Amino acid sequence: MKSDNPNVRSIKHMAFAVRDAAEALKAYAQFLHVPADTVLTDYPKSKNRVALFNLGGIEYQLCQSLEKGGRFDQWIEERGAEGLHHICYEVDSIDAALDHAQAQGASLRLCKACGVKGSHPHPEGYVAFLDNDAGGVEIEFMQVYTPEELEKYNAYKGI
Amino acid sequence: MKSDNPNVRSIKHMAFAVRDAAEALKAYAQFLHVPADTVLTDYPKSKNRVALFNLGGIEYQLCQSLEKGGRFDQWIEERGAEGLHHICYEVDSIDAALDHAQAQGASLRLCKACGVKGSHPHPEGYVAFLDNDAGGVEIEFMQVYTPEELEKYNAYKGI
Repeated sequence: MKSDNPNVRSIKHMAFAVRDAAEALKAYAQFLHVPADTVLTDYPKSKNRVALFNLGGIEYQLCQSLEKGGRFDQWIEERGAEGLHHICYEVDSIDAALDHAQAQGASLRLCKACGVKGSHPHPEGYVAFLDNDAGGVEIEFMQVYTPEELEKYNAYKGI
Repeated sequence: MKSDNPNVRSIKHMAFAVRDAAEALKAYAQFLHVPADTVLTDYPKSKNRVALFNLGGIEYQLCQSLEKGGRFDQWIEERGAEGLHHICYEVDSIDAALDHAQAQGASLRLCKACGVKGSHPHPEGYVAFLDNDAGGVEIEFMQVYTPEELEKYNAYKGI
């Protein structure tokens, strides 16, 4: 995997803001041969409907806000168009990624779901959001758990 | 490489429409630790300035139109924002990709640089554009040349 920043291992996922996840999935099925029966999942906490699939080794998330003024609805309203909302970068060290970005002027964005700024545990790994975008795209970092960390996270959630 | 469409091998590149390639590169250098001395290249034929680098195995192209009303300038004007303009998918078979998409209602877009619709030779491989987007993002396909095809292409261009 070639990367001009060796700390970035891969793109973990790309999240697209769409008006209607079922319609957007239909376009991906028509034009990119993604399975038309891909499941749509509703997340009541974040009030989103998401179609999730993989293309060329990258996870795609087609994200529809289930209420007016939601995160993705607002993004679309501002532009009058759907598009790529954010990229989540899988990094070897989330601390190194955040240290570098903050030393260069980045600020951390609150994770609304968790009420935390900076690196904190999510189901798949440690996650952080920047308040800054690059080329119009928001930035998320994830340091995926080791098998031991995942076990700890799951044990903690199971309490 | 996991892919829900096995014909899609990877993302060959992502092209972002930006107002100023140097400024957008600066943001990638600050927040994603891309080399700040990445070269900016001007393409007089297509009238674009492009910063090109790799992140997590994917080629990023930050594309600035060098004249008002150019391809990327127009895209930004329509939205009032920068963002992801198109994704180029590397496929095993560009004919299979186009046959499927067209059977599902896709139409082919003219390649303005070459004056051709559908699959045709570009420097790195056979390329085609769809007139349809998925989730707000335009779609390009590329079937990368075999070493023999690349030799033929270069010999042809050398005439």
